[in-house]
Amino acid sequence: MTAPVDSLPPGFLAALTEYVAIPSDSRSATPETMRAAAEWLAGRLSWAAGRVEETDGFPVVRGEWLGAPGAPTVLVYGHYDVQPTGDLAEWHTAPFELVVDGPVLRGRGVTDDKGPVLLVLAMAEALLAERGGLPLNVKFLLEGEEEIGSPHLPGYVRAHADELAADLVISADGAMWRPGEPSISIASKGLVALDIEVTGAAEDLHSGRYGGTVANPVHALATVLASLHAADGSVAVPGFAEGVAELSPQRRAEIDAVPFDDEEYRVAVGVPELFGEAGYSTLARLWERPTLEVNGITAGGKYTVIPHRAVGHVSCRLVGQQDPERVVAAITAHVTALAVPGVEVAVRADPGWVPAYRIEPDHPAVLAARDALAEVYPGHPVLLAVIAGTLPATTLFESALGAKTLFFSFATADEKHHAPNEFMRISRIGEGMRAWAALWDRLATTTEGTR
Amino acid sequence: MTAPVDSLPPGFLAALTEYVAIPSDSRSATPETMRAAAEWLAGRLSWAAGRVEETDGFPVVRGEWLGAPGAPTVLVYGHYDVQPTGDLAEWHTAPFELVVDGPVLRGRGVTDDKGPVLLVLAMAEALLAERGGLPLNVKFLLEGEEEIGSPHLPGYVRAHADELAADLVISADGAMWRPGEPSISIASKGLVALDIEVTGAAEDLHSGRYGGTVANPVHALATVLASLHAADGSVAVPGFAEGVAELSPQRRAEIDAVPFDDEEYRVAVGVPELFGEAGYSTLARLWERPTLEVNGITAGGKYTVIPHRAVGHVSCRLVGQQDPERVVAAITAHVTALAVPGVEVAVRADPGWVPAYRIEPDHPAVLAARDALAEVYPGHPVLLAVIAGTLPATTLFESALGAKTLFFSFATADEKHHAPNEFMRISRIGEGMRAWAALWDRLATTTEGTR
Ligand SMILES: [Zn+2]
Ligand SMILES: [Zn+2]
Repeated sequence: MTAPVDSLPPGFLAALTEYVAIPSDSRSATPETMRAAAEWLAGRLSWAAGRVEETDGFPVVRGEWLGAPGAPTVLVYGHYDVQPTGDLAEWHTAPFELVVDGPVLRGRGVTDDKGPVLLVLAMAEALLAERGGLPLNVKFLLEGEEEIGSPHLPGYVRAHADELAADLVISADGAMWRPGEPSISIASKGLVALDIEVTGAAEDLHSGRYGGTVANPVHALATVLASLHAADGSVAVPGFAEGVAELSPQRRAEIDAVPFDDEEYRVAVGVPELFGEAGYSTLARLWERPTLEVNGITAGGKYTVIPHRAVGHVSCRLVGQQDPERVVAAITAHVTALAVPGVEVAVRADPGWVPAYRIEPDHPAVLAARDALAEVYPGHPVLLAVIAGTLPATTLFESALGAKTLFFSFATADEKHHAPNEFMRISRIGEGMRAWAALWDRLATTTEGTR
Repeated sequence: MTAPVDSLPPGFLAALTEYVAIPSDSRSATPETMRAAAEWLAGRLSWAAGRVEETDGFPVVRGEWLGAPGAPTVLVYGHYDVQPTGDLAEWHTAPFELVVDGPVLRGRGVTDDKGPVLLVLAMAEALLAERGGLPLNVKFLLEGEEEIGSPHLPGYVRAHADELAADLVISADGAMWRPGEPSISIASKGLVALDIEVTGAAEDLHSGRYGGTVANPVHALATVLASLHAADGSVAVPGFAEGVAELSPQRRAEIDAVPFDDEEYRVAVGVPELFGEAGYSTLARLWERPTLEVNGITAGGKYTVIPHRAVGHVSCRLVGQQDPERVVAAITAHVTALAVPGVEVAVRADPGWVPAYRIEPDHPAVLAARDALAEVYPGHPVLLAVIAGTLPATTLFESALGAKTLFFSFATADEKHHAPNEFMRISRIGEGMRAWAALWDRLATTTEGTR
């Protein structure tokens, strides 16, 4: 019997092990560590003039193979940065040590986005070795700030728009929706993050010696946060949903046709019951409805103080035509209108907000991708899904390069992206390599080359 | 011109510097560090057979001078442990380095309770040197777990009740109410601490990939916490106030007669406005009303997750006949009745709860203390105040030793106990030494010795 890991192409595991070992957490790593990850990745792109280029933040990795004159050009997008590990105590293996565990590989970044990028490079090298060339022209743009909202990518892409010009962007970032079937994401939600900060006294106060005389910022923050949602979990901020279209009966029917087992999902997630906005199925909420989630609270500690400051960290996932700036304004107005007594309340948006993104289901690239997946997963219908997560680069590529983005990732959404114990299914790597090759072959004939 | 620090008795500053330098934070220090603090303190008690004795937790420091046969016996209580430093970035000086800063001494523990204990020892040594003896018999019990709720003190005191027997306990822990006048605390609030823990999924979830499908434990916690208070800040938990007597017109009048400037207090604390239960003055709320404060929240982080767990850390300050156990039951019942959907909610009380304590204003010890303070602070009326904080040992001494506790501390309540930048007024040290000597002289003649 062969182990799943034996199915990997020669050298792949060793390469991914080296790559995961570079702790390129863009929130806390040093510039030297980030550069080491970029240099490592550029080294894998030597067949495409791979190189590290400066931005105003962490560098990008660039490369191109333009040996198919007259054929279309695709720009492959991905990222080499990873999420923070969070609490190390919650990890069952060392986060920066690639571990082979039966059918999966474990490690921070293995599925977001180191594995899914590396399989594209391995596929291209294999094609070059086999055929002596690629079916179309390929450019690469692999950034180091995706997990912090790509703050310097817009400036870089706009400044290098001519060099990056392509007929289509293909994102190796993103994720298949579920492990059991192939899927293509035709939309991603937008994102706006903000802090709600409540300030009381000049310093923390002893809860006995001052209790009862002043407002407690933690109570005030709880009041503010509790006001943001209705009892059913829908967002209760007036104006928040501006730009969100009512779900059409057709879209509702499409979603209802997708096989989805609420109970199976509940058990997988490990919650006592599913929960959310009344009048929408679980999948409709996930794919089509905007959310406002409090991601954490920073306030005091366990012991007997009245903290002088309490901060709620909030992120909103946007859909349709929601305007991030207006969402922030709506939340600010709502919080201000509460007029919580005895404290100051401020809303501060993080930079780097992103509107929602969509590619039409009948776009030629989506059709090509469906065909490619059908070839690799025979007998499985290809679902058209939504990335409820956010890929900030998509709207940028549309505005700066005039190119649509096709999501074509072989990560799977349940692989603990952004959480402890991130993993990637080994089977997806070979499947992904075959599918990318099939996609490129199809795009070479169905997409019009304009350069 | 002499600096305030020059008024200290010889050797006092050097001793307190050594003592503060031992970081005896009972929440995080090693047993070795705690023992070092105890040994240091026992060394200052060599004239009273000072020694370190084992408990089931951090040791206590004991000592006694029993050279006044027929005179009463007092038991001096205090503690050698200190609060955690909290965020070091908020400290203006190194917490465990005693700093002389004009009229104050700065450092963690300097006023709670290292300075107020050390001044008693310095006073007793001075009396012995001057007079060759003390006016009464003195025992010492200085514990190392006050800041964590004295979990092992009851067992120790009950096991050593005969050795600790005294006519009166005098607590060097506590605080004068304000810097401008002398005061004696005739009551302290009780304390019960608990965690409210909300649990959702098995692990943290990506807020995009799962948002909208499950309840967010942080939202649920906000809903729970927001339900604990009414709009005016009073506690809204049914049954919480059982055992709290209505404020008598006489007590209301007494409190109203105490000079207290709301605006001055507001500015000192640094809040935009004072806040609390309707129908009670600021001082009435502080001294006579129970409180429920959320001291902090542990939930997620800044980034895009739905945390799987959110915990509110709560402490209640009790008055009158409130029963800590029934308070916990009332909060549990209230939280359970909310039936917040999609999550599990648990209430877990910390061990070591304490009921409220009171000594009558006409108790002979209170009268002696008023006289002693009047001697040290001529022309200042002595206020009878309430320690809105909690001194768990008091109810223990009453039940185990049959002795009332007189609070006689020369800390002041505004000296940032339990917060960054703790300090103690240098002037209180000399005043405290004189007052303790005067108190002992008075107690020697007015309190009946029973041993
Ligand atoms: Zn990613
Ligand atoms: Zn204390």
